[in-house]
Amino acid sequence: MADAIETETNYAGFIAVHVGAGLQSQARLPRYRETIKRACLQGIRALNNGKNASEAACMAVAVLEDCPLTNAGIGSNLTLDGNVECDASIMDEESYGAIGAVTGIKNPITLAWALLHTQKQGLLDGGRIPPCFLVGDGAKQWAQQNDIPLVDNQAMTTENSKFTYEKYKRKLNENASETTKKIKTENSDDTERLDTVGTIVIDRHGNVAAAASSGGILLKHSGRVGHSAMFGCGCWAERKDSCSIAVASSGTGEFLMKSLFSKSISDACSNDDLTPDTIRDHINHIFLNRTMTPTNAEKYFGFILLKMITNENQSRSVEFLCAHNTQTMFVGYMTTKQSKVTTCLSELQSNGSLTIHIDSVRLT
Amino acid sequence: MADAIETETNYAGFIAVHVGAGLQSQARLPRYRETIKRACLQGIRALNNGKNASEAACMAVAVLEDCPLTNAGIGSNLTLDGNVECDASIMDEESYGAIGAVTGIKNPITLAWALLHTQKQGLLDGGRIPPCFLVGDGAKQWAQQNDIPLVDNQAMTTENSKFTYEKYKRKLNENASETTKKIKTENSDDTERLDTVGTIVIDRHGNVAAAASSGGILLKHSGRVGHSAMFGCGCWAERKDSCSIAVASSGTGEFLMKSLFSKSISDACSNDDLTPDTIRDHINHIFLNRTMTPTNAEKYFGFILLKMITNENQSRSVEFLCAHNTQTMFVGYMTTKQSKVTTCLSELQSNGSLTIHIDSVRLT
Repeated sequence: MADAIETETNYAGFIAVHVGAGLQSQARLPRYRETIKRACLQGIRALNNGKNASEAACMAVAVLEDCPLTNAGIGSNLTLDGNVECDASIMDEESYGAIGAVTGIKNPITLAWALLHTQKQGLLDGGRIPPCFLVGDGAKQWAQQNDIPLVDNQAMTTENSKFTYEKYKRKLNENASETTKKIKTENSDDTERLDTVGTIVIDRHGNVAAAASSGGILLKHSGRVGHSAMFGCGCWAERKDSCSIAVASSGTGEFLMKSLFSKSISDACSNDDLTPDTIRDHINHIFLNRTMTPTNAEKYFGFILLKMITNENQSRSVEFLCAHNTQTMFVGYMTTKQSKVTTCLSELQSNGSLTIHIDSVRLT
Repeated sequence: MADAIETETNYAGFIAVHVGAGLQSQARLPRYRETIKRACLQGIRALNNGKNASEAACMAVAVLEDCPLTNAGIGSNLTLDGNVECDASIMDEESYGAIGAVTGIKNPITLAWALLHTQKQGLLDGGRIPPCFLVGDGAKQWAQQNDIPLVDNQAMTTENSKFTYEKYKRKLNENASETTKKIKTENSDDTERLDTVGTIVIDRHGNVAAAASSGGILLKHSGRVGHSAMFGCGCWAERKDSCSIAVASSGTGEFLMKSLFSKSISDACSNDDLTPDTIRDHINHIFLNRTMTPTNAEKYFGFILLKMITNENQSRSVEFLCAHNTQTMFVGYMTTKQSKVTTCLSELQSNGSLTIHIDSVRLT
């Protein structure tokens, strides 16, 4: 047993984060890169301090939420009513916690994590089952009762998010039909928008976790919950017989939801070797060609995935994968044995409908 | 083409409903039976009038919600704060609509259906994607804007639901540890509680739909959303290559959610012949032995499932299945060619851990 423990502490942990599939503006790339690095380092520090995978995932996503340029936490897209309403979820091998359409919580992911954590403590007073998913005012009330920091919801908006909101709200009111095209195609520094942020983590014991956080789509109806909160959709983490796997996804929320995107891609990738061809096939089957998503709508996705295999000699290796059909996806990753974060601004190939990156990382 | 249409109109439609897995009190059986019959007949009338599967499903579930003895719509379990907060979802082969933790809507399922229907109309003004899942006040606002009838939330409570709430709230406050046992074991006429209601439907064109509606668990935290609203969990409807399938499930919401119960049982049952042994294996694998649900908690489930197969001679046959590990589950079903509803009060077998009923119905 002592040997086993000794061996375990020799394994490295791993983290990857992304700041949302979409289109990053050139001018902001340095700030995104710096945010990605800080999020990875925060997660790695947590792992090095003995925190488990879900704790490290929560701490890394909180860094992404605190960046006013991501569409999560402060600076999120505003609803049609001009508010920030956040979705977030976190999953590890034991449980899942999520919140939807929540206002006034500085770090939505901490509330989702607290729900995950509470479930692991067993039943509540009176034999009641602890909730895994809370929404709206009830979620906020739970946060207050459990010492999760609240903020005035106005503090969640930024000059930039207000500017973007007012611009598109005005266009929507002026001329609905003309706006259709403009909302989709304009992309200046002021208007670039990104989707759900997320992370995937392995701790030193080989436990996996994944987390997602999002402000949702611009001008969404109040109360709308997107894929980031939904079980199987925004993130997935599971230990299987053959491997452990974790996924965090981003893109067109309603469509990702209706394909149970993160679970589906996890299931598909756990059975096959990860090659660009097999991944392309899976994405077509799971998402792009799926009949429940309308054929005339643009279906955007981006995801990061890790697949950890323990070999016969007990060494651990990780395949890290990033794929997207958005213009860009900005990711970073590192192990606890490395001192620097690898960052990658992935751009859509000029000749292709999607871009796939695969990297192998040793944890032994 | 004329021939094909002629043939289609010769096919029968089918509906099955249930009033929630749980324990029905003997004294109330006649009222449950009458409610089940009215719900089936309402759905069958809709199908005979040319409504599609999701419309018939919505109308049948609205009847179940209007019954003050079910845990859906009026008479639902009250939250810890003493309110009715409803979850509901509906799914057909094209889309999915759901609401969570919603107050003041007389028939939650009509709001979920309206979201399903709106998605089929294409994109909103400004190219915005219509929501498939709305929660809390935002959902209520959407209902108001779309002429869904609102009611004072006080009108959703009954003498019985208030009595039960006050009784268990008092016990919870008095002595948390002692209450654990009592909440679970007491079952008089006053205190019998049931879970999510639901329906599964085939229309004359062979389209399938499923729907679920629930007031959630007694003394739940405000804002808690259970499996009834969640994609893949409360209900499932899908046309596959080999068959069409629809499921509506009931039971311990958090645990059903974490096993994606309705989708998982649908996937499992679409590949196999429906026999008690295969179904028992699937339930063990998907739910009872699943590691993400705590081993020390009681895991209750009940579901109805239909599997429609079109044979080589173009005849259609339906396997109807009901399974549960609760004390009772009360179901009814019929085709558009029948004049009477078949009702079945299924009771847990004294020697078994679960009860399974299978029936075959011809639609040609």
